[in-house]
Amino acid sequence: MKPVLALCKKLQTQIQSKIDGKTKPIGALGQIESLALQLALITQQRVSSDEQLTQIKLSKPLMLVFAGDHGINRHNLSIAPSVVTGQMVTNFLQGGAAINCFCHSNNIDFKVVDCGILSAVTETDLSESILIEQRLGAGTQDFSAQAAMTFSQVEQGLAYGAQLVECCLEDGSDILLLGEMGIANTSSASAIMAALTTYSVSDCVGVGTGISPQQLNDKVALITQALARFSSDHVEHTTDSVLRVLSEVGGFEIVQMVGTILAAAQRNLAIVVDGFIVSVAAFVAVKLDSNVSDYLIFSHLSHEKAHQLLLAEFQLPDDRKPLLNLGLRLGEGTGAALALPLIKAAASFYNDMASFESAGVTV
Amino acid sequence: MKPVLALCKKLQTQIQSKIDGKTKPIGALGQIESLALQLALITQQRVSSDEQLTQIKLSKPLMLVFAGDHGINRHNLSIAPSVVTGQMVTNFLQGGAAINCFCHSNNIDFKVVDCGILSAVTETDLSESILIEQRLGAGTQDFSAQAAMTFSQVEQGLAYGAQLVECCLEDGSDILLLGEMGIANTSSASAIMAALTTYSVSDCVGVGTGISPQQLNDKVALITQALARFSSDHVEHTTDSVLRVLSEVGGFEIVQMVGTILAAAQRNLAIVVDGFIVSVAAFVAVKLDSNVSDYLIFSHLSHEKAHQLLLAEFQLPDDRKPLLNLGLRLGEGTGAALALPLIKAAASFYNDMASFESAGVTV
Repeated sequence: MKPVLALCKKLQTQIQSKIDGKTKPIGALGQIESLALQLALITQQRVSSDEQLTQIKLSKPLMLVFAGDHGINRHNLSIAPSVVTGQMVTNFLQGGAAINCFCHSNNIDFKVVDCGILSAVTETDLSESILIEQRLGAGTQDFSAQAAMTFSQVEQGLAYGAQLVECCLEDGSDILLLGEMGIANTSSASAIMAALTTYSVSDCVGVGTGISPQQLNDKVALITQALARFSSDHVEHTTDSVLRVLSEVGGFEIVQMVGTILAAAQRNLAIVVDGFIVSVAAFVAVKLDSNVSDYLIFSHLSHEKAHQLLLAEFQLPDDRKPLLNLGLRLGEGTGAALALPLIKAAASFYNDMASFESAGVTV
Repeated sequence: MKPVLALCKKLQTQIQSKIDGKTKPIGALGQIESLALQLALITQQRVSSDEQLTQIKLSKPLMLVFAGDHGINRHNLSIAPSVVTGQMVTNFLQGGAAINCFCHSNNIDFKVVDCGILSAVTETDLSESILIEQRLGAGTQDFSAQAAMTFSQVEQGLAYGAQLVECCLEDGSDILLLGEMGIANTSSASAIMAALTTYSVSDCVGVGTGISPQQLNDKVALITQALARFSSDHVEHTTDSVLRVLSEVGGFEIVQMVGTILAAAQRNLAIVVDGFIVSVAAFVAVKLDSNVSDYLIFSHLSHEKAHQLLLAEFQLPDDRKPLLNLGLRLGEGTGAALALPLIKAAASFYNDMASFESAGVTV
């Protein structure tokens, strides 16, 4: 695996001093300033100029929504049957979903990746330009009884995810936004979190989009059953043990997101993380290469209670907390899409705002 | 004073059911949904249709930044001398300030209102289209020693503020965003808050953009001195007593904001409130007419500690809490400008998103 380079801090002092010279009291724009610093460092890394500061580049933001189905949902762990994943993918292709509205409202290009939903969607005129087919199967296996997927599916998924990044680079995107759709994929996400952290299964499981107490109990029991098959109390994870977790309890959309996040960080792109499920994929990517963390922008704090616990595991400073906290619990990338204007505003602040000197302000 | 009509809730059930029929689990978009409800009710009020639902209208969002100077700053209560207010107004006219970047980034029209800064800015080519001169004087009086302004200045200020709303309506704006610039205007805002609430002066005073402990002590002492001149322990405020507070410790920009907020609510416009100082103006407007509250959208929670206390005084439900919490403490309307895309996204969600029925989704 190609290593991810940590952000080079060589120009950090110069970038910070450019930020501090803007016509405003030091630090008065709070997290917008720390975001500008991160974006400037990421851009700097990509242009590979050690000697001079460049403008932050955020051309062609692209939302990738990864869709997949989950065998575990035969136990009825969601408010909806698995067929709804495909119906929602069709809704995405027709432009009628929340994520379509928000991408349209915020000028974000939009693609849906079929990573392995139950039945491939019927081709439409629209699907050609919006739909990317990278199917790993027709839904995963029921992970309470057996591994969700094979090792070779995991490897293929990571490769598919990485492949998307090359297309994005060719199209000139500087920033990727990630979202997901998959009925019951919080079960997979919670299981991954429980396997890779010291939190209990109960801590990692939430009500998702609104399941019953009975469904919640079932969710905990089935995940516990799956983990008993392969988990041990090791504190340190190796690449192999992390890939094993993906194979045992992962989802096709989650694996491909891990691949995309890893490759995007390798290529020094800014990565906007949506809610709980995308955060789990990001966490897996960080477990595979800790430098990935430098490239992540957390868009929102989900209503799903495990999200807060998971975010703590990234051990980020307070000024990298999620940008929004609006009680969202939809997924689809909606939080990431809603946060993009803040990220663009941080770039505009850094690129366009006057300095005390240039504006003739005397403070 | 023309009364503000409370939002008519006649169509609320229909609006809520339109929201609940969108292709997402009930409530899954959190505060975006309650914002859509508020915006739909406001639009409905303006089009005066009792019988059918209309689309949310948010044409031509306009940012008005109100600038004024403060006599109290002869005691050196800010990190900057009063001359900086005018310098920053010039910076606004030249397009170099944070608020210019954010308005540009989010497609917001922008005007600066000179409500009474020390010296009127020199005309420039740009100022013609951006600057509105409604000067009530060359800065207020030092309110620690005497009333900041006369009653007739208060009345003129409210009228000036209302006049802006008529211009906005002629231009076709459906939503107004308010910001302010005025060295030492947190002193005036804190004094107004202390006079109109039961909080102590210390609770109402913060470090502003970064003053020293000595300046903080002076700020508390001078405000306490001013309040001793006219405050009493009455719990209920009359229109006269509220106007008295504005005259004693107000600022020219704060008075004009009160006038704009009142008139905008009378004309059923959505009003986006920036940080602490604009919130104080909104609070005064609510004291003058409690129905104003229905039209307010709080954009961000300021780093200034009194802001949280003041917001509690509005007694709003949790789903109307400020949209952003990014540690901003700049003013200028920056928080309001940053929040606008969320407001537009809420409108897009309401106007454009498919229903379960139209999308053929089976949940």
